[in-house]
Formats: sequence, C-alpha cells, structure tokens
Amino acid sequence: MSAFSDFPFPEDFPVFLPNAQFLEYLWRYAEHFSLREHIRFGTTVVSIRQQPDFASTGQWNVVTEADGKQKTEVFDAVMVCSGNFSEPSLPLHSFPGIERFRGQYFHSRQYKHPDVFQGKRVLVVGMGNSGVDIAVEASRVATKVTISTTRGAWLLGRVFEHGYPWDMVLNTRLMSLIKTNLPRPLSWWLINHKVNQWFNHENYGIQPENSCLVREPVLNDDLPSYILTGRITIKPGVKEFKDSSVVFHNCPEEEPIDIVVFCTGYNVSFPFLEESVVKVENKHASLYKYVFPTHLQKPTLAVIGLIKPFGGIMPVAEMQARWASRVFKGLCQLPSQSVMEKEVNENKKNQVRWFGLTFDEVLKTEWLVYLDTLASFIGAKPSVLGLLCTDPWLALTIFFGPCSPYQYRLGGPGCWEGARQAILTQWDRVLKPTRTRVPAGSSSSFPSLLAVVGFILLLAAVIFGFQ
Amino acid sequence: MSAFSDFPFPEDFPVFLPNAQFLEYLWRYAEHFSLREHIRFGTTVVSIRQQPDFASTGQWNVVTEADGKQKTEVFDAVMVCSGNFSEPSLPLHSFPGIERFRGQYFHSRQYKHPDVFQGKRVLVVGMGNSGVDIAVEASRVATKVTISTTRGAWLLGRVFEHGYPWDMVLNTRLMSLIKTNLPRPLSWWLINHKVNQWFNHENYGIQPENSCLVREPVLNDDLPSYILTGRITIKPGVKEFKDSSVVFHNCPEEEPIDIVVFCTGYNVSFPFLEESVVKVENKHASLYKYVFPTHLQKPTLAVIGLIKPFGGIMPVAEMQARWASRVFKGLCQLPSQSVMEKEVNENKKNQVRWFGLTFDEVLKTEWLVYLDTLASFIGAKPSVLGLLCTDPWLALTIFFGPCSPYQYRLGGPGCWEGARQAILTQWDRVLKPTRTRVPAGSSSSFPSLLAVVGFILLLAAVIFGFQ
Repeated sequence: MSAFSDFPFPEDFPVFLPNAQFLEYLWRYAEHFSLREHIRFGTTVVSIRQQPDFASTGQWNVVTEADGKQKTEVFDAVMVCSGNFSEPSLPLHSFPGIERFRGQYFHSRQYKHPDVFQGKRVLVVGMGNSGVDIAVEASRVATKVTISTTRGAWLLGRVFEHGYPWDMVLNTRLMSLIKTNLPRPLSWWLINHKVNQWFNHENYGIQPENSCLVREPVLNDDLPSYILTGRITIKPGVKEFKDSSVVFHNCPEEEPIDIVVFCTGYNVSFPFLEESVVKVENKHASLYKYVFPTHLQKPTLAVIGLIKPFGGIMPVAEMQARWASRVFKGLCQLPSQSVMEKEVNENKKNQVRWFGLTFDEVLKTEWLVYLDTLASFIGAKPSVLGLLCTDPWLALTIFFGPCSPYQYRLGGPGCWEGARQAILTQWDRVLKPTRTRVPAGSSSSFPSLLAVVGFILLLAAVIFGFQ
Repeated sequence: MSAFSDFPFPEDFPVFLPNAQFLEYLWRYAEHFSLREHIRFGTTVVSIRQQPDFASTGQWNVVTEADGKQKTEVFDAVMVCSGNFSEPSLPLHSFPGIERFRGQYFHSRQYKHPDVFQGKRVLVVGMGNSGVDIAVEASRVATKVTISTTRGAWLLGRVFEHGYPWDMVLNTRLMSLIKTNLPRPLSWWLINHKVNQWFNHENYGIQPENSCLVREPVLNDDLPSYILTGRITIKPGVKEFKDSSVVFHNCPEEEPIDIVVFCTGYNVSFPFLEESVVKVENKHASLYKYVFPTHLQKPTLAVIGLIKPFGGIMPVAEMQARWASRVFKGLCQLPSQSVMEKEVNENKKNQVRWFGLTFDEVLKTEWLVYLDTLASFIGAKPSVLGLLCTDPWLALTIFFGPCSPYQYRLGGPGCWEGARQAILTQWDRVLKPTRTRVPAGSSSSFPSLLAVVGFILLLAAVIFGFQ
C-alpha cells in the first residue's frame, strides 16, 4: 500500500518496513528507473524566484548551495517536495515556567537515539505518532516515562483485525463508499466500538476528548502493554513547569522530570519561496488539490506531498507528481483561477469527512477519493464497471480488495503491463514474509476466503446499523 | 490475581509487574508478616532423609550447606518449594549435527541480558514463554532473530479483550462452569475464533499443530508486530545443525546462525531427596493433589508449587502451604494411601480438561477448580449460595467477577477481615494505575457496567453455541 505504483516491494520484505529497508527500496527504485544521475544530493535550495519573463515562459530562477558555493540556474518548472516535517513547531509560550526548568528539553525532530534517556525521568509532550514512538523507545532505558496529552488519541496497531494491515482492510473501494456515506452518530459509535475492542481507551487514560474535531489515529503496537506494565504513564496536559518538575492539569502532585521531548508537530513552511507564491495560514497552504498555487500566471510550480492522507504517502506523492508533470507539459489543463480559488476556500471551511468524522487539520484527506480524483485528471483511474465485462475477477478484486497503487497503472499514460498481476497477487506478497512455517493440514486459500466473509459480515453490520 | 490472599498489591503498582517490583512485593509481604527472621538465605539443601524413627515421629534429617560449611538438623516437617524451573532440559541428542556447530549455544536458563546477541544472528529453539520473551529482547540488538518451533502455539496478549487482564476475564466462577462443561468441538472452534481475532496464527506462521494434546497459550504482547516488521522470523522444527548454520524441516535453504538459545524447558528433579520419596516419571511426580507423596508413613513432607495452573502461581502455592501446614499439625487428615494412589494414577491417565481441551503435561490444572478443592479441605472455600442470603452483592461479585485470592480469606482458618473490601474494590485497583488521565465527561462506572454486559453477551454466545 506504500509502494510506487509500478514497483512492488521485493517479496521477501516484511509487511511493515523498518526505515533502513524502506531506504533500500527507494535506492532500488532509483536504480531501476535510472534516476540516480538526475539527483543532486547535498544541495540546499536557497531561493526560488519567478524569472522576469515568468508570465510568458513560466520559468524559475533557483539559487542552490553545495559545498559552501552558491549557484543560480533557470528551470522550466519546479516541484517542491519538502514535505510536512521540515520546520518544527515548538510553542514554548504555551508552557508556563519552561524558562526556569533546569532539565534538558528538545523538539522530537532532534531525537536520534534513546541513549539520551538512559536512567532519566522523561516527559513526552504530545501523543502523535512521534510522541508515542519516542516514549516507547525511551521506556526501555529510562527510569520513568510519562506522556502528557491534552487531547488523547485513538490508537491502532499495525497488527490490525486478524493481523491484516489496517489500510488493506479499510482502504478499499467498498469501504470508501461506506466511509464517505456513514452518518456521523453511527460512525462515532462504530469507531468507538472497534477502537476499544483492543483495549478500553478510557481505562488506559488516552481516551480522546469529545470534541468535534478529531485527530487522526495514532499507529503503535506497544503503547497499551507498556501502560499496563507501568513502563509508560499517561498524564493530562501540562499546567506548569517548575525547576526540576512539572505540574499537570487536574493533578495535585508534581512530577519530577529530567528531560522533556516536545512532540508538538510541525509548521508548514517554504523559506525558499516568496510568501506570495504559496500562502500559508493556520497550517493550511492555499493550493489547488494540495498541489498547485491558484494565482500563478503559469502552472509551473507544484507542491508534492504536502498532505496527510489516511494511507500511504508514497502513492499519493507519486500521483501528484504524475499529474503535475502532465500539467507542466501542457497535457493537462488546470481550471480557471477563480474556480481553483473557490474550491480552496471551500476546503478551508468544510474539512474532509472520514467515517463521517471531521478532522482537525485541513491537510487530512480521504486517501482513495483523493487518488481517484487526481487519477481521473490524467486518465489513469480504473473503471470497475468497464472491467466487470472484460476482466470480472480483476474488477471484483479492485472493488472489494485493497486499493493497491497498481490500480492506477492498468491504463492511461504510463500504464504498466505488470499491474494486473501485481493486483491479483497482492495478498500472496503480504502473507509470504510471515507465513514462514506451514504446519501440515493448513489451508492456503484461507486468507482470501476470510477476507470475503469479513467483508460480507461488515456489510451486514453496516446495513443492520442503518435500520 | 497473583497476590497472596491477605496482602493485595499496593494500589500504585502496575497491572502487570516487572520482576523488580514483584520482588519488592515479596519483601513487603515478608516484612508485614515478620517472616524475614525465619528465612536463611544463601543456604543450599544438600540432602533430606527420613529419621530412623520416621514411622513414629515423621521427622526429617536435613543437611544444609552455607559458606562452604555443612550442617545437619532435624525438622518435624519439610516443604519442598524448588519449583518447576531448577533443572534445565537440554535434549541435545534431538538435534543432529549440534556437535559440529561452531557457534555459541546455551539453555534459556543461562540467559541474563540481551547484550550477548549484539549484532548476531540468533536462533531461538522452542516458543514457550521464555523462548518468545528472549526472542523479543534479542531482536532489539541482534542482526536477525529466528524462532524454530515444531508445535507452534496460541498466543495471547497481556492486553486481553478490551484491555482487561485475561485471568480476570477467564478465571471467574461463571467461566469455570463453562470451561469445564464445554463440548470439545465447540470449545476448539471458540478458542480458534477468539485467538485468531488478534491475528491469524496461520498467516503468522505459529499455528499450533492439530494434535490432540494442546500446549498452554503463550503470553506475549510483542511477537505479532515483531513478525510483521520482520524483526523475528518463525521457522519449523530444526532438522540439522551444520558448522555455522541450521536446516529446518521442509525448508530447502540453510539459515546462517551465530548463537542458539535452547528454550526446551525443564525437568522435574529433586536431587536432595531419595528417589523413593517422590517418584518422577515422564515429567510427572506422583503426588496427591500435586502436594503429598502417597506412600510415606507420616504426611510430613509437602511439595509446594510443582504445578502449572492456568492462572497466578502465588495464590496456588499459598493455598498448598495453608493445606500442608494444617496436615502437618494434624488439623487436616489425608485419605488412605490406596485412595491417594488411585487418584494419582487416574490423573496420570486422564489429564485435565480446560475449555474441553486435553493438555500435554500432567502438571497443568484448572486454576479455580484446584484452588476450590484445597480450600474445601481447610474450610476456606467461599459459599456463594450462603452469601447470596447474607451479602448478595458480594455473592454476585464472587460468582461473576474474577476469582481473586481474597475469596479464600472470607472465612475459615486464617480468615482476613479485609477480604470483603479487597474483593469489592478489585476492579478499582486494577484500573487505578492506568486511568491516570481522565478527560472531562468520562464515566467512572464504565468498567463494571462493561464487565456485566460482557458477561451477559458471553453467556448468550455460549447458549447460542449450544443450540
């Protein structure tokens, strides 16, 4: 689900990749498509400015710096791929007393290795994915680890229902239909029920506040058992720092602390661009479909990967790049400036709904719907109805099965002849790295059968829920 | 569920205790009951022999060794508490080629710290609790970790259904009734269904072989996600060792290995006793109710804790000790030698059933039934029907709620006035260490309500299953 659409992961790679193996995949991809020679490493982009004749050429003047030397070049088009995680957000003013706290503190982005926590009492502020990951690693060497969270979170495991990856279960075309049409109270109940089946979030102290704006689920397998064994303690938001301790809201006792890690997220920031090119307000960049600035005279600048989809980022960034490159070439047209601006402004107000819930950040979007939208722009969206006549088994797999990225290489520009086979064998590749011991009498057709039965049951549950 | 019956764990202790905290609990217990002065540490028991006048006195001649000096003393009675884990079982003859394997190997009992695995390719043979625990710790520092298992296992998490501890859900009087009366096919289906809800054991390579003799579930929270992320690989049984690698059954490739940890269990052994006192055959000691040798002229020797109940060992060992001390004092009588021998022999043949399943070792026993049996011997078994008239809320809590050890201190010899309160507040103490953040609007009565609803649903499921 995180592969590029024409380059499946090697069969022997695990279902969830450690960082080193993911890097290896990127290297293999770059090698396979001979991209290496087109990449300049160790080069900082200092500034990107419109050429004086931008209105006619759409060209950009780019200043880069490598080995201490600056260089200016002209480019016909620019893709900005600096992502969500470049400028740490460290709102110290929200933490009274931090100036007199004598322990160490830093933003999660500076974290590299758990050794810094050896024998220390650690406070992790914020429980997004980074916060929980750092707390778990810290707890193996620290004396004590506390997570402070005002808002709480829903936690999902990588070992999702029956051990299948969550996005292969939830990011299907069938589920997408359900997700986008479910009435809010029902979905609230359904999610609460499902999410608390693993463990009761209230009893473990991480229940989200009942607010209208929901944050995305946090993905971690270890936190619940670490809470249960006392390695990690959950506390409410920070009220105040003291010399060598912290006070939490609604807690009388002070908690002695040696190190604080602020996992307070990131700001959207483009220091190399003029503010007028991409306007950023309230963590929201005014971009058409999260990619194109709406007011440029020529669509020759695209922002790639500035989005938080509920699914793998790689296929999304790739799809954005496929679309952008066709726009650059003039093979795809953008709507008029007013149409784009209207949509962006509406997006700011009406945030995405996912399972009927409203999310707290504009960058969050329904993965499959967004992919389909961009794919339809470039003519790469698969037609389930069309396939039903010509290749019914593939059509069913596409509709009921996980929306693996290969679906967007079945036809259209850049179609890949291996796509069909990659889709039909997707479950085999997921099961292969873990089914490394098969006792006599095991049924090999079990997973697909189970998946089908699961879907039918789920459908029944939803229909039943609607009555 | 693992507390001594008159000494609950401190309220701020986590739900599952790390070893250091468990030791602290034992120290507090010893201090509270002034036991410290009765214990001689650093003393090895060399031999225990019957006195010449044993038939009349029941006395034992005990040789101990401390600081290199031996001492002989006479005792009126002896409790043997050396447990299950004193003599490692290392059946090297079952591993062809081990003599030419040039890497390091050792039994799990010798394992102390994961540092030995730093940068090594590790093979763990056997996937009992030790095997999985060691593999998980090793995988954080090793290059590669492989678990070899012939029989597989069912895996449960400490984070059990909805995050409640498994024994508080399963070791209730209601569940005990269900467990001991469920027909085998139904229970097989039920367990398979429940156990695979977390993750499909077949897809993760650890599905137990479909044999008639089942092993007890393994308790580990980490293994599934470690398999999914490729940190740990599961392989079938070892076929052969080579110089620096191993070959598994039904696997063509050799696996290069640097270190092997044999997690192959323990033998039952009493080197300080004459073989005639406690006969051990096939890992089974001939003991009446797992405690008393059947053929001694006087019942002045008891074996404590030589049992593998499906529940906490501490309350069981304590109950055995309570019974044994009353037998020693003459306040409880044992049946005649022939009655005891008959029962022991029958036990050897008809192994315990748990959820309708037959287990692979004789030492395994249904926790609650066994506790009740011994409690009835000493007059400490609670009468649910009796309490229903005098203290109905307590009676319901005892029947539907977890069988916490305090139930055996409500009446009879050594009854404890805090027992009732300890039972009624048992869920509060379980929730307190994890409910350390309570957002506004949380319902505090949720857990007991949920528990009741859960029981009713479960009951309905079982009744439905019977139809």
